[in-house]
Amino acid sequence: MATQALPTNPSELRALCRVGALDSPTAGLAPGYVQANLVVLPEDMAFDFLLFCQRNPKPCPLLEVLEAGKTEPSLAPGSDIRSDLPRYRIYREGEWTEEVTNIRDHWQDNLVTFLLGCSFTFEQALLESGISLRHVSEGSNVSMYVTNIPTNAAGAFSGPMVVSMRPIHMDQVVRAVQVTSRFPGAHGAPIHLGDPAAIGIKNLGKPDFGDPVEIRNDEVPVFWACGVTPQAVAQTCRPPFMVTHSPGHMFITDARDADLAVI
Amino acid sequence: MATQALPTNPSELRALCRVGALDSPTAGLAPGYVQANLVVLPEDMAFDFLLFCQRNPKPCPLLEVLEAGKTEPSLAPGSDIRSDLPRYRIYREGEWTEEVTNIRDHWQDNLVTFLLGCSFTFEQALLESGISLRHVSEGSNVSMYVTNIPTNAAGAFSGPMVVSMRPIHMDQVVRAVQVTSRFPGAHGAPIHLGDPAAIGIKNLGKPDFGDPVEIRNDEVPVFWACGVTPQAVAQTCRPPFMVTHSPGHMFITDARDADLAVI
Repeated sequence: MATQALPTNPSELRALCRVGALDSPTAGLAPGYVQANLVVLPEDMAFDFLLFCQRNPKPCPLLEVLEAGKTEPSLAPGSDIRSDLPRYRIYREGEWTEEVTNIRDHWQDNLVTFLLGCSFTFEQALLESGISLRHVSEGSNVSMYVTNIPTNAAGAFSGPMVVSMRPIHMDQVVRAVQVTSRFPGAHGAPIHLGDPAAIGIKNLGKPDFGDPVEIRNDEVPVFWACGVTPQAVAQTCRPPFMVTHSPGHMFITDARDADLAVI
Repeated sequence: MATQALPTNPSELRALCRVGALDSPTAGLAPGYVQANLVVLPEDMAFDFLLFCQRNPKPCPLLEVLEAGKTEPSLAPGSDIRSDLPRYRIYREGEWTEEVTNIRDHWQDNLVTFLLGCSFTFEQALLESGISLRHVSEGSNVSMYVTNIPTNAAGAFSGPMVVSMRPIHMDQVVRAVQVTSRFPGAHGAPIHLGDPAAIGIKNLGKPDFGDPVEIRNDEVPVFWACGVTPQAVAQTCRPPFMVTHSPGHMFITDARDADLAVI
């Protein structure tokens, strides 16, 4: 389905996902509405993962957690978390085994759903502030790197923080910090400015995930905590069963980006 | 022990608590450092209570959660949560049974510790902004009220929100909103301005907790979510065993109030 034919209303977009008529990336859909990362884990791992998110709010900004077996987030009344994302990834014992467009047949009443904030919210805020983003204008994936910054462990969950990097013109770095600080529910302020080696990144030209991007002489690499972190951390614990969204295929909520602004 | 003889350093104040040499309220002690509310619950209630806090960040701003059996918060390295508060209250089946100066003999390895932000942080910020607080200048307890605002339930935990009220001069209400918005980790922005009846408060002169306070003609009653909420909610679930701090006898951390500012 061509993007220009798609509705802009979150509930109508979710309805398309529900019947399998939308299974493409959600970037740019329903502008102004919050999109969320998804992590689904068995109940017996839920307390530790909730604790991990509470201790690592920058990579893991919790938007909503559902009790075991619940499937309708209050961020999207009438929705069903088992069908209303375009694509899901299923992991067994930490290994990615399937990519599917719904998880109805995989659902169990012991599963706990976590929704986490997504960089789309702060990228929109940056763009509205006149700060251009090269990966957006080039239509590529943002560059992501595994750092030497440890997350704060919780139970079985631990591991290094993953960051995304955006080159920002030196005259706009301060403004970029201010604008993204307003959205702690979407990774918030940068975790590092400048020297990549200081956080254990050897070569900006070779990201661990996503695509490389040019950095000009008058630009500073700016690093934000990345939503890949909780997925990567959860995966290393090799849970017997786990579901996440497929990269870029987010859950579109009824909450507005403006609702996440702290001030 | 007279307040003027006390140290101003958090770790030294905790050391006094530890040996029973400080068992008085902590208001005004260690200025600039974060003080925290304490809730200790058995492990089998911990996920639901953590979820409750996540869903009600204004009354229940989580600062730190310890795994079951752990006693040393990272907010205060070297401390012991069983002894380093001036006074504790013990509840059995939801009934307050004892007030003690340490809980060493009551500790069990299945207990989970929650530390929540406290209004002292935002009150200090208001005072530094030139906004006077009558209960502080009068040396009384802040007025607190049970409202008709429901909290967002989680598992067994539900109930009405409790608020604190401070009369603010009409010229300073906007600034009071701005200043406290910076501290979501300490209840954050007000939840209501003006008409008490709109949130189910019949008589401002008769608070449910704390002391009444004069409201002058040029002042607006301003309401903030209150840390009594989680205690009250936890109590209504009648957990077999629960510990909280004694009102006003907080846990003094090594974190600085400025660390809680989001921007």
